[in-house]
Amino acid sequence: MNKPKIIAFDADDTLWVNETIFTNTQEKCKALLSTHIQPKYIEDKLYEVERRNLRHFGYGIKGFMLSMIETAIELSEHKISAAEIQQIIDLGKEMIAHPVKLMDRVEDTLRILSEDYELMIITKGDLFDQESKIARSGIADFFEHIEIISEKDKSSYRQLMLRNGIDIKDMLMVGNSLKSDVLPICELGGRAIHIPFHTTWVLEQVADHNLSHVQYDVLENIYQLPQYLKANYS
Amino acid sequence: MNKPKIIAFDADDTLWVNETIFTNTQEKCKALLSTHIQPKYIEDKLYEVERRNLRHFGYGIKGFMLSMIETAIELSEHKISAAEIQQIIDLGKEMIAHPVKLMDRVEDTLRILSEDYELMIITKGDLFDQESKIARSGIADFFEHIEIISEKDKSSYRQLMLRNGIDIKDMLMVGNSLKSDVLPICELGGRAIHIPFHTTWVLEQVADHNLSHVQYDVLENIYQLPQYLKANYS
Repeated sequence: MNKPKIIAFDADDTLWVNETIFTNTQEKCKALLSTHIQPKYIEDKLYEVERRNLRHFGYGIKGFMLSMIETAIELSEHKISAAEIQQIIDLGKEMIAHPVKLMDRVEDTLRILSEDYELMIITKGDLFDQESKIARSGIADFFEHIEIISEKDKSSYRQLMLRNGIDIKDMLMVGNSLKSDVLPICELGGRAIHIPFHTTWVLEQVADHNLSHVQYDVLENIYQLPQYLKANYS
Repeated sequence: MNKPKIIAFDADDTLWVNETIFTNTQEKCKALLSTHIQPKYIEDKLYEVERRNLRHFGYGIKGFMLSMIETAIELSEHKISAAEIQQIIDLGKEMIAHPVKLMDRVEDTLRILSEDYELMIITKGDLFDQESKIARSGIADFFEHIEIISEKDKSSYRQLMLRNGIDIKDMLMVGNSLKSDVLPICELGGRAIHIPFHTTWVLEQVADHNLSHVQYDVLENIYQLPQYLKANYS
């Protein structure tokens, strides 16, 4: 196959840590609510509420905060206090202000890759949160295109390619989510590299049998990319 | 001046009704909270909380919901119940699902304009909300460019123009907000038409003296645009 011209990166849990911030906040919420609810019930209920609310709220911290409040109200049978709800909101604000922690050697990797490739970010989620993280990441200048979209599926990738005048055959997508970064790109005839993160949000998980028809490579760390590209395309 | 090539429209309260949905929900919240708080105190406090939260939440319904919950908690001195907070969340979900009500004769206007001009939407706010409204509006196909941005200021307009390869001299911006649609465009050397909506959100209001250095025209209704353009540029 031809050498790709563009390397597109997912952002959350690919360029920087994200899921850990959500799971840490979930743990804090569990502790906060432990006088009303046994912690073991919270996780499943939260996923159920998040799944139900996705069509109202989309992805992002504000939707997570609202879903966490609903979960606490439902599970506590309306016994949760206003002060406790305020604490949930405050935990959410801490998440929004959380410093951006880049993955190992991201900057070096991008510097090396930028010599041979156009770099791009394709991230989904809340526009305001994502722009803030990109601005604070210190790596924005490596990217020629930055796309923040509300959903990563075949149709949204197709539109994005069209809008940017990109042929999917010229692109290599790199990300931690099989569901959002790998599967739709491969199904559109593009190439993808999966770099798993140690935690995958339940709504991003995908059953093995849904992946049997696509081919993609797996790397352990983002800093292995330059070597991988050299081995495959030079 | 040369005839513009691109007419760019703001969306909320320019193409469709928006502020009315917020003010109606505010009224419902006031009624809901009236056992705890005198309605007259709610509005000012809500603006204060919204202003304070803007840097955390950005624009949009989810941020509004969270600010309304905080307002209720603070003003009720933590006496508001979980059930009442759930009602605020439910009111927010109704806002999100609210049908898109186009301004008078928008479709006809866009049809006429699309014969002579490239049309564009430049809207700020929550990506998920705005995409949903654009999709449900039935008018998306008239627009060659759709840009959803998190803030409308000189810097974000400048980036947007660059990204789309647009010279601001070729564009005419149409919107209801002097602060977001008119002032930054005029200051960048572009042209803008102000079409006031009967209600302006307090955070969009701009003092008269801040407008004295810019020139723009005012129309009462969007359907007057074709006539205006004909009179000025043919």
